[in-house]
This record gives sequence, structure tokens and C-alpha cells, in this order.
Amino acid sequence: MLSIKRLSLEDARILLTGAEAKSREIGVPMCIAVTDESGHLIAFNRMDGGKVTSIDIAINKAFTAACARRGTHEYNKMAVPGSPTFGIQNSNQGRFCIIGGGLPVVVDGEIVGGIGCSTGTAEEDQVVAQGGIDYFLQHRK
Amino acid sequence: MLSIKRLSLEDARILLTGAEAKSREIGVPMCIAVTDESGHLIAFNRMDGGKVTSIDIAINKAFTAACARRGTHEYNKMAVPGSPTFGIQNSNQGRFCIIGGGLPVVVDGEIVGGIGCSTGTAEEDQVVAQGGIDYFLQHRK
Amino acid sequence: MLSIKRLSLEDARILLTGAEAKSREIGVPMCIAVTDESGHLIAFNRMDGGKVTSIDIAINKAFTAACARRGTHEYNKMAVPGSPTFGIQNSNQGRFCIIGGGLPVVVDGEIVGGIGCSTGTAEEDQVVAQGGIDYFLQHRK
Amino acid sequence: MLSIKRLSLEDARILLTGAEAKSREIGVPMCIAVTDESGHLIAFNRMDGGKVTSIDIAINKAFTAACARRGTHEYNKMAVPGSPTFGIQNSNQGRFCIIGGGLPVVVDGEIVGGIGCSTGTAEEDQVVAQGGIDYFLQHRK
Repeated sequence: MLSIKRLSLEDARILLTGAEAKSREIGVPMCIAVTDESGHLIAFNRMDGGKVTSIDIAINKAFTAACARRGTHEYNKMAVPGSPTFGIQNSNQGRFCIIGGGLPVVVDGEIVGGIGCSTGTAEEDQVVAQGGIDYFLQHRK
Repeated sequence: MLSIKRLSLEDARILLTGAEAKSREIGVPMCIAVTDESGHLIAFNRMDGGKVTSIDIAINKAFTAACARRGTHEYNKMAVPGSPTFGIQNSNQGRFCIIGGGLPVVVDGEIVGGIGCSTGTAEEDQVVAQGGIDYFLQHRK
Repeated sequence: MLSIKRLSLEDARILLTGAEAKSREIGVPMCIAVTDESGHLIAFNRMDGGKVTSIDIAINKAFTAACARRGTHEYNKMAVPGSPTFGIQNSNQGRFCIIGGGLPVVVDGEIVGGIGCSTGTAEEDQVVAQGGIDYFLQHRK
Repeated sequence: MLSIKRLSLEDARILLTGAEAKSREIGVPMCIAVTDESGHLIAFNRMDGGKVTSIDIAINKAFTAACARRGTHEYNKMAVPGSPTFGIQNSNQGRFCIIGGGLPVVVDGEIVGGIGCSTGTAEEDQVVAQGGIDYFLQHRK
């Protein structure tokens, strides 16, 4: 039998709080999604001004980071034509997102969820996702 | 040019707070989704114990209520075999949800968004959605 | 070799004009779609106040009427559980619409397109679709 | 509560009229779609000779431009392999279109809708979409 660690809704809210603070700091409103370690959505916020097309992208970034167990920016580099991983972006009914801004949430060396941000550039999205994680690691109970 | 009113993220959070309180009151953890008046997700919470299959259902209930402009329980009664509306549940790529628990959010006679709840019975889901709306109408700023 | 008659964009606009007039007459704003005889969209109008969920439904009603060659209200009666046609509403990736309001457009005994209306009751939708056809048959060039 | 500006059907028709005139001027019949600021279709015309495959493309260009808030030709340049945005064309169930010819419609600094054209080259499609916007900004009421 396996024993799994998983973000609670309370944990997810701390991640959202941290990401939202970072989003305000850099001045780019975001769609922010938090999934559990199985890639299923726990919590989502579209800040006023977040893009409609980023709803899907943020959720899929969190899904991908949690389940493929890497930052989505890493897959961005791996999934170029000619590389052996090219094509992975078409898998999972198009839900495998290879744009930066999705990060696994790791506690005690275990992936317990994912966070995905979208609306800015991939770099901005990643900064906001990391902001959520940094805040979470300091404030989780 | 049309002028439209739409829930803000702050509004959506008040709806989530009210629905979550009602959910605790009846003892059934829920997936709770809030969309804008165009059916696009603003905020989502899966309470600890909310069903994974209810993520999609809650989001689609909120979408349907906002965009088809009725409680989803009304469509449940209208969409039985032999009735003229039967089949509507297959529309919108399966996103048209006819299970009770989705309600339009109305302010000053205008639909400004939708709320959808799922995990309990359709009746419980509807009670929680209504709890969110009641709380919102009292506490919105 | 086959020779096919097909609505032009000019024809489609006459259908839209007639349907819109009928829609105003009964006081229910509509989504109105016109397809060619192959079920492909030629023209679409969402009147101010038409439902967002009715975009898909109107287009699919026109598609179904043109390609399945009957009013969608006829399929509504044929597709009840226990009847031999039950299940047809799941075909064509859910695009086969069995709610009244879709009618084939017939010229000289040939189906040259389809019209689909949605937002009101199935009965209202059908009245508006028929209004479009009646106007078209009088005013086409 | 947010307050949003949105194209009316009358506005959408002015956009279609302008785009159609430009399309005739360059001699390439087009599929032309206009969505509201939330990406939902308001009006669509397939000119005689417009491609069937361009129905979907025109609608998705308008959706993308309105909701991702850039011309689709900009995403075309941003979404090349090796760039951080590569993969965005797989998002939103394939509806995120990165072919030129989709433009946001901006009034008083606010995006109030999107226009998408398809059938010609991406450059021709963009010229026709821009023609619709130029005409709209001169003739809207």
C-alpha cells in the first residue's frame, strides 16, 4: 500500500496568496492554478485582468508540473523539433503544457502538487509561480 | 456598444466563502466554481473531501447557469425524454450541465456570473450554491 | 457528376433578416445560424441578448436540419428512449441536435441549406426559423 | 463588480461590412468572424468562395485575439520552436490560433471584441481584418 502526501485546500490557498502577492509586485495580473499531486485542480483564481485564454493554460501548467514532475520551462527546452522529447506537447489531449510558469510543489523531497501561472510572458509566469512556492514554504502550517 | 456588469475576483471569493460555510453547515465537502457572466472561470475551490469528478461538473454547472441563464435544476426538469428540450445536455461539447447545483448570480436584475457546486446530491449542491449567493448578496461591497 | 444547389451568402442574409424580424415580433432575441446543404456555416448572428450557450446550439440545429434532412423537432420525437432512433443525439461528436428550431431550407424540392435558431423555448426557436424561411421564399432573388 | 464594454451586433455588422469591402478590394473571398471581448461569436459571414476549413480558423482567430489580447500574427512569431511561448498553439483545446488574421478590436483603450479572417494567406487575412477595424472606427455610432 502506498502513502501519499497531498496539498490540502488550506495549503493551496497559501500558494495562491503568495503567487498573487508576487503578481502584484511585478504588476501583471495572473490566472493561478494549484493542483494536487495527481494533477487534479484544488484551487484557481483569475485576478481582475487575467486573460481568458490563460485559464486553460494555467490549469494545464499546474497539471503538467505535478504529473510530469518538472517545471514546464524545462519541457519547453526539451520539446524542440529534432529532440527526442519533441511531440510531448500533443499528449494528454493537448493538456501537456510546455510553456514556462508551471512548477511542481515539493515538500520533504516529495511532489505534493503543482502550481501554474499564466497571462504574462513565460518568464513572468514562472516568477509568479516561484513566488507562490517560496511563500508557501515559509508560511505553511 | 454594450455595457456589461461582471463579478470581480473579490466578488467571486465572497461567493466561495458563503458556499463553503453552507457546505460545512450541511457536512458535505464540495467543489465550488464561480464563473463570470460569459461562463469563464474566475475562482474555484475543491474542499478537502470534494470529489475529483466534481471539478468538471462544478465548473460546467456555473458555466451553464451563467450562460443559459437558469438554475441547472430547471434544465434537469425540462430535458427529460419526450420534452422539447431533451438533448440540450449534449450541447456545448458536453459542457451544458443539467444537474442541480448551478445558479446564475443576479445583481440589479442582471446576470453577472454563475456559481456551481458538486459532490453531494443535486439538492445538496443546490443548497450550497444558494448559500453562496445569499451570503454574497449580504456581504458584497 | 453531381450538380448541387447551395445557398449563397446573399441568400443566407435574407434568411437572417427574416428570422431576426420574426424574433423581434415575438420579443425573444436569438442566435441564428445558416449553413449550406453540407452543414457548413455560411452566416451567423447573435442578437443582443441571445444566450452564449445558444451559439453552439443554433449552429448545430442548422447543421442537423441540412444534413439529416428533417426539422430538429421531428428528431426530438423520434429520439426518445425505446424508439429505434434513440441515441442519434450522441452522434457526430454531439453535433446532432434534437431540439426544435432547426429546419432544412428547401428550394424546388431540393435541400439547399439549413437554418437553426436558439435562445427561446424550442417552439419559439422553431417559429423564428420558419419566419426566416417564409421571408426567404418571398424575397430571394 | 467590474464594468465591461462589449461589441453589439450592430457593431459587429459594421466590422463585417468593412472587412468584406477590403476582401473584395484585394480579390480574395473570406470567412470573417467577430467575437465579443470574452471570445464568444457575435457574427460570422462566409463569402461565396470562402474555404470550409476557414470557418473554424476565422472563429478561433477572433477568439484568440479578443482573449489573449494580441494580433494572432504576433503569437505566430512568439510561438516558434525554442521560444518560451512555443506550445501555446496547443492550448484551449486547439482553439488558440497563431496564424495571422486575428486582431483585437480596441475602443477607448479597451478590448471590446475580436475579428478573425481566413481563406487567403496570413498576410491577406490580416489586411482584411485590419480593413474591418479601420472601417469600424470610422463608422461606428
